Amino acid sequence: MTSDDADPGRGQATPSLGELGEFGLIERLAARLPAGPGTEVGIGDDAAVLAAPDGRVVATTDFLLEGRHFRRDWAGPGDIGHRAAVRSLADVAAMGARPTALLVAFAAPPGLPSSWALDLSAALAAEAARAGATVAGGDTASFDAVLLAVTGLGDLQGRAPVTRAGARAGDVLAVAGPLGRSAAGLALLEAGLREPAGLIRAHLRPMPPYDAGPEAARLGATALMDVSDGLLADLGHIADASHVAFDIKSGALDTRPLVAAAGALGHRDPLEWLLTGGEDHSLVATFPPGTPLTSRWQVIGEAGPGHGVLVDGRAHTGPEGWQHFR
Amino acid sequence: MTSDDADPGRGQATPSLGELGEFGLIERLAARLPAGPGTEVGIGDDAAVLAAPDGRVVATTDFLLEGRHFRRDWAGPGDIGHRAAVRSLADVAAMGARPTALLVAFAAPPGLPSSWALDLSAALAAEAARAGATVAGGDTASFDAVLLAVTGLGDLQGRAPVTRAGARAGDVLAVAGPLGRSAAGLALLEAGLREPAGLIRAHLRPMPPYDAGPEAARLGATALMDVSDGLLADLGHIADASHVAFDIKSGALDTRPLVAAAGALGHRDPLEWLLTGGEDHSLVATFPPGTPLTSRWQVIGEAGPGHGVLVDGRAHTGPEGWQHFR
Repeated sequence: MTSDDADPGRGQATPSLGELGEFGLIERLAARLPAGPGTEVGIGDDAAVLAAPDGRVVATTDFLLEGRHFRRDWAGPGDIGHRAAVRSLADVAAMGARPTALLVAFAAPPGLPSSWALDLSAALAAEAARAGATVAGGDTASFDAVLLAVTGLGDLQGRAPVTRAGARAGDVLAVAGPLGRSAAGLALLEAGLREPAGLIRAHLRPMPPYDAGPEAARLGATALMDVSDGLLADLGHIADASHVAFDIKSGALDTRPLVAAAGALGHRDPLEWLLTGGEDHSLVATFPPGTPLTSRWQVIGEAGPGHGVLVDGRAHTGPEGWQHFR
Repeated sequence: MTSDDADPGRGQATPSLGELGEFGLIERLAARLPAGPGTEVGIGDDAAVLAAPDGRVVATTDFLLEGRHFRRDWAGPGDIGHRAAVRSLADVAAMGARPTALLVAFAAPPGLPSSWALDLSAALAAEAARAGATVAGGDTASFDAVLLAVTGLGDLQGRAPVTRAGARAGDVLAVAGPLGRSAAGLALLEAGLREPAGLIRAHLRPMPPYDAGPEAARLGATALMDVSDGLLADLGHIADASHVAFDIKSGALDTRPLVAAAGALGHRDPLEWLLTGGEDHSLVATFPPGTPLTSRWQVIGEAGPGHGVLVDGRAHTGPEGWQHFR
């Protein structure tokens, strides 16, 4: 949670990225990134060669850009590496797949201490390991801002992928993992606050339940997605792709973890964070009615005929989540 | 070869990226990007699902960043899309694999005309098609510079990957594709020149012989790499990984296509471009002595015991190719 400038006892004691050079950096990164069991060729060649056991590979790529997705005065290298991993790992899980590997493209100013890059890499690898994956390759470049583009690969283990297009009228709508906590943490940071610490941490280090993705697939989920742009916005994509409407029961959304933050910020409605806050990367799924769910799946509504997303039977007015380019 | 500003009859007639929004842009991009035969899930879901026929996948990711790898006043969207595709496709071919799919992360200023992004995407898809691949997914973001991070995936078709580590003393060193032409073209652009047009084009639209990668594998290549940072620098990586030395015969390197450019720039030695110029993304390989090669493989030297890279038996003095972070 500290910027590189504020990081005590590190920083200028290590060579800068410019002093280390591209190949020096890659050598040090590779030495700390163990190859996974499915890695036939890892870091240091033109490309990685990775196992794809069922003859298919799930693949996704996501940016994490300084000034757009993070600020170095709010987030330290560990936070940034963690979040870069989360975005791609959650997308893999959201197909019902097990994450297997990440490829990391990393650009940074040459004056940055190399310890900063190594801390970022360590956090990225740690979150990948939590999901069962390893860092298998990447690219480095010099740029005047810190840029990350992380590719996530995954294994469907013989199952069909769970897309956004399979929800049917009558299906149960359920979520695994928290909602609105990252958005509340970001609002606190924007207001210059550092507490409640749990919400700050939820923004800087979201912890998606990756294994809920394959679990949803095994339970028979008809549609699955991670909440990256906000519940209403993301459910809108499932509604469009599946040709159904959703009705969210607001009473099923737990506002309690957000009440203190809403109070600290004066005028905020916690429900708004739950409905429109993205970046928790929790998993939202539809299941046929009567599907016996495990306890981590919280039923929050249902699918019906029509289109769009309602809250308690009515259109929700207010911001509808994150829109890129706007 | 025109910037977006100079592009006649386009530009402000189309909505800007900001006006179109993220999902409007993705919808228009997806409509122009046909799914490949191996695409089970393509653009528009959390991740793509792609065939990996032999139970493995080759995977690489590369940045192409404005101000670092290209300038918008020298390169138009078609050039930039083309080069973004080349970097990853050549890395896949350099493992001996057939490229199958690209994932494209694309960031740009919101004021950019959407036609610019569509032209970039069309060129990216066209170069992918030349290599046998399709664009299967990606990410978009708003940023104050144009940023691309392209992931390339490929299929080894049951063969072993050809790494950098297999060259042996006595092996023949050969190259498929041109050397030094991109560097000569860049030097011309830096000097404000636009001719010889063939060299300018070699910089803006390099055309690697992707199918020479699988061909090299079938011919029994012991090591294989694409020349992205310069022949000396890249051969240095093979020498290090394989524990051999290389001796390049300068007389085997064809300076003729570069003589006019060297003359136009006054004081340049064409051999320097051939030895240290990167970004042609030609393929360099080692083969056991006596391997019958096809005509596109030009023998330029041999591997021996020792380490490092010599030219005509001597150490080469001068710049050693591109070093990131320096």
